[in-house]
Amino acid sequence: MLTIYYVAGTRAIRPVWLCEELQIPYQRQDVSFDPEFRASTEWRKINPVGKVPAMRDGDLVLFESCAMVQVILDRYGNDQLAPKPGTNENALMQQWSWFAESTLARPAGEIVNHQRVFGKDTVAKAIAEMKERVRLCLKAVDDAIVDKEFLLDFGFSAADINLGYSLHLANKYVDYDDLVNAKAYYERLAARPAFQRSII
Amino acid sequence: MLTIYYVAGTRAIRPVWLCEELQIPYQRQDVSFDPEFRASTEWRKINPVGKVPAMRDGDLVLFESCAMVQVILDRYGNDQLAPKPGTNENALMQQWSWFAESTLARPAGEIVNHQRVFGKDTVAKAIAEMKERVRLCLKAVDDAIVDKEFLLDFGFSAADINLGYSLHLANKYVDYDDLVNAKAYYERLAARPAFQRSII
Repeated sequence: MLTIYYVAGTRAIRPVWLCEELQIPYQRQDVSFDPEFRASTEWRKINPVGKVPAMRDGDLVLFESCAMVQVILDRYGNDQLAPKPGTNENALMQQWSWFAESTLARPAGEIVNHQRVFGKDTVAKAIAEMKERVRLCLKAVDDAIVDKEFLLDFGFSAADINLGYSLHLANKYVDYDDLVNAKAYYERLAARPAFQRSII
Repeated sequence: MLTIYYVAGTRAIRPVWLCEELQIPYQRQDVSFDPEFRASTEWRKINPVGKVPAMRDGDLVLFESCAMVQVILDRYGNDQLAPKPGTNENALMQQWSWFAESTLARPAGEIVNHQRVFGKDTVAKAIAEMKERVRLCLKAVDDAIVDKEFLLDFGFSAADINLGYSLHLANKYVDYDDLVNAKAYYERLAARPAFQRSII
């Protein structure tokens, strides 16, 4: 049985959302997000740097949410939610998946870090810059999604899951109601029953 | 012809290194890293948020270095440098590739950002924390590479390319000579002729 180690609000949403979309059997195992638990020998055997989520599938133990998404697709996707490797559409799925985590989620994460490390008075410049970077990414999404329901002509794909979580994260830090295409796209994603089941 | 838009020292090293390992034809096109160029209409058509690298292959234009690595593998890899999708070894290749960029390169990048935004006196706590995070990641690599030449039992793979660049980046900010397995692993990677050709 595929087991996903889960904490609400974290990137664990991605693999759970994917399993719900694919309607495949999996087990969600809630774990603690306390620093003490994440630093424990028990958890460090599963993720050596203490992050969440992780998964177990037979003798495979795996961390990194977007890697988990790709591996679940490769093993249980049955050619759903992903265009064929080698095609332009699959290339774009890869691009937007990496963009979601490495380019969009990064400055959003830095806002969290800055707020935690510095006092409120000292962070204004950095926070403003990080918000601007998030906005630039959201503008790129806004431009990419004009007149489209999902990122790919292929239809709903794992790229929407990976990016959907990052938009969910960005919502907490940046107002982008004016980016009407990106906002409507996020709302379409968030309305999906599989997404709803991934966040509870 | 596969074209890779290149700036020395950037993540452009990854796809160039891969092409050199695969010995496939490609064209390296040097571009400017000046903020003005990266904000230009010309470059924003290739990467909407102005980052480097990007690539062009026929009618495909693609950004995100690790996506480029996967796409080049899918199109021209001929089953080299990557275990078969669905296997545990391929899953671990995905895991370490994502770890390289999303977990290890992230705090290294934050050090750059903090140093740029704040004066020297105000950043000590944040810089120290980010260095500690980089160290935690390097320790995970150190533990994973004991008694192994490369990350996977499969042998040298794209995971080593993706992680190799991140180690190259981490070298600038963190001393990890004491992590002898990780250091020796980086030195093995850096000694490869294909890597050497990717950085000049």
